[in-house]
Amino acid sequence: MGNAQLVNGQTTQTQEGEVDRPSSLLAVFGKDQPLRLDCGIDLAPFQIAYQTYGTLNAERSNAILVCHALTGDQHVANVHPVTGKQGWWTTLVGPGLALDTERYFIICANVIGGCMGSTGPASTNPDTGKPWGLDFPVVTIPDMVRAQAMLIDRLGIETLFAVVGGSMGGMQVLQWCVAYPKRVFSALPIACSTRHSAQNIAFHELGRQAVMADPDWQQGRYFERGTHPHRGLGVARMAAHITYLSDAALHRKFGRRMQDRDLPTFSFDADFQVESYLRHQGSSFVERFDANSYLYLTRAMDYFDVAADHDGVLASAFRGTGTRFCVVSFTSDWLFPTSESRATVHALNAGGARVSFAEIETDRGHDAFLLDVPEFIDIAHAFLQSAATARGLTPPGT
Amino acid sequence: MGNAQLVNGQTTQTQEGEVDRPSSLLAVFGKDQPLRLDCGIDLAPFQIAYQTYGTLNAERSNAILVCHALTGDQHVANVHPVTGKQGWWTTLVGPGLALDTERYFIICANVIGGCMGSTGPASTNPDTGKPWGLDFPVVTIPDMVRAQAMLIDRLGIETLFAVVGGSMGGMQVLQWCVAYPKRVFSALPIACSTRHSAQNIAFHELGRQAVMADPDWQQGRYFERGTHPHRGLGVARMAAHITYLSDAALHRKFGRRMQDRDLPTFSFDADFQVESYLRHQGSSFVERFDANSYLYLTRAMDYFDVAADHDGVLASAFRGTGTRFCVVSFTSDWLFPTSESRATVHALNAGGARVSFAEIETDRGHDAFLLDVPEFIDIAHAFLQSAATARGLTPPGT
Repeated sequence: MGNAQLVNGQTTQTQEGEVDRPSSLLAVFGKDQPLRLDCGIDLAPFQIAYQTYGTLNAERSNAILVCHALTGDQHVANVHPVTGKQGWWTTLVGPGLALDTERYFIICANVIGGCMGSTGPASTNPDTGKPWGLDFPVVTIPDMVRAQAMLIDRLGIETLFAVVGGSMGGMQVLQWCVAYPKRVFSALPIACSTRHSAQNIAFHELGRQAVMADPDWQQGRYFERGTHPHRGLGVARMAAHITYLSDAALHRKFGRRMQDRDLPTFSFDADFQVESYLRHQGSSFVERFDANSYLYLTRAMDYFDVAADHDGVLASAFRGTGTRFCVVSFTSDWLFPTSESRATVHALNAGGARVSFAEIETDRGHDAFLLDVPEFIDIAHAFLQSAATARGLTPPGT
Repeated sequence: MGNAQLVNGQTTQTQEGEVDRPSSLLAVFGKDQPLRLDCGIDLAPFQIAYQTYGTLNAERSNAILVCHALTGDQHVANVHPVTGKQGWWTTLVGPGLALDTERYFIICANVIGGCMGSTGPASTNPDTGKPWGLDFPVVTIPDMVRAQAMLIDRLGIETLFAVVGGSMGGMQVLQWCVAYPKRVFSALPIACSTRHSAQNIAFHELGRQAVMADPDWQQGRYFERGTHPHRGLGVARMAAHITYLSDAALHRKFGRRMQDRDLPTFSFDADFQVESYLRHQGSSFVERFDANSYLYLTRAMDYFDVAADHDGVLASAFRGTGTRFCVVSFTSDWLFPTSESRATVHALNAGGARVSFAEIETDRGHDAFLLDVPEFIDIAHAFLQSAATARGLTPPGT
């Protein structure tokens, strides 16, 4: 537990303190167990930081892997060691919830390239003793999943009962089903796509350019130089945050309401509530996220294209799969619109998969998967219940 | 013609050279003719740079005012003095075109707050001899229109045959009709709204924060410090540019195609064409636009809210108007969606206005108003023809 600080009587960590010695379980892979990356490099040694909830049953058949989104991490359902806030998916993960911690053994690992304990650009490069920075190899969604499979191997689990995730997490879910179809009994990919659209690549490139435009980024060597590109990363976060909400949600939440005033100031202060909100989103994010990780993870999403690895035919990627799928989209999500999920469903159908599809009516945009949206939560619950029955998992308390 | 440079045998100007002594006609207003601003300040002296095309008829009844968009200027239909490119609306303005320069007298003025010769933050503050920078008062869309009305007075024109513009230009068109209903015979507001949405304010705030995050912005004093926030302004432009196109247009134009390569480089180079395109948009923009002007003009758009000045009742703003309106929107415009134009039309109807409404089917997004979209061009042409007949304007050649 490095870099602990005592603030207001509570122990808090900095994000930098989490990089090499995280407040999580750690799976370390030595030089003899490299992670083979899509770019052709073997990464070794490397480590994966992960959290677990619940208990693995004797048959090792009740494990659910939760895959986190771009700016998420492994702290799904516990207090976050840096922010002190509740986990990011307490609407779905907990006793009696859809991902019932009394019934399932739930695992969530920080992705490779992340900054909360799994090896990434902020980690110490063993060859230099300094942070990797841009010397870290570019990783892909398949690389993340390959690393997760090595973790699952180490935990002695052959088949995951379910793989679940939204956004970049959903991409990992789909990649699991493509790469390890026999190891995934059921899959719940939410608000995602089998490939990143041109518009999404554009928004990511905007974010990367904002980070790299900050002179304090120092070509990625900000740790050694004692700087931090917090302005650029804040701008990147603001841009991303707009895409996570819908026009309707922004209108309902803020409209044109002023912040603590009735009349405009005729200045560049944050007159409107939405301005103040975005500035807050930008500045709070930089405290808990590494700027280089942001570059790497957005890049991984941009590169993701399942069909491209299957001669352009998406259905081929899923042909003959035995996994049960439930694909979920949200009507007001314009980052991963329903049309993308529908394309995934069509490919799954064409590949002969067992698939159900739910388009949830909500005005809350892409972020809906993180929010208390009852219809979505009910569907996730029902899908996993049904899959659990098919898998022969005993309900808790019986 | 200040700051002239000879490049490849062509005389080109820099944008900075256009600020005080533009390559345009100039209307100068002295200390005795202040521009009364919404913020309560009287701006004097000030100047307006403008271009005209065609000839004012003896009755002074054939004048059309074109209002430019956020990053547009007065160079509608002539070679641009800085970029050397054709004017920004040659699809619509020229001999025999919808805004027929053989029939109408067409005026376009750089807005107050702009950077192409009308007084703005880059202009020399007469009290200090230095650029205004952030000492320039915050201006509004009504301020821009008030300044234009002073120009129209000076040109001896009582009633404009038409006021025409898209995006921020369309906001000015609507404001003309609200502020000077008797002086506007016909109005063509395109791809705009009577108020800026929360999402649009959010995107503008993002752009402003990108500019202000650049250390070279120097609190707006970059001219004196010999710096220029080109990185921040470039990022702001990239963000804005994404909003000007539709997801479909980006997909059609770029998809996931790579730039001059077949395989990913596994780096942060511009692998995808859309990345390369955005970087180009960002870097070319900073050559022709002033960063502080960008702050002021986005702010003016954010503040725009016609209903707010009429007790929240939009229809009141247009009650009893005699102006003929043609409101135009584009199906794939998500910055100013059709629903916004429809709300304007409803208010115009409720106010008793004579109004027609055209929603143009196109996948080209907000930028469609600047592009060769035949259905739009035909509708603009027909509307102005019909208005000209009603106005008793003789067709050319008769």
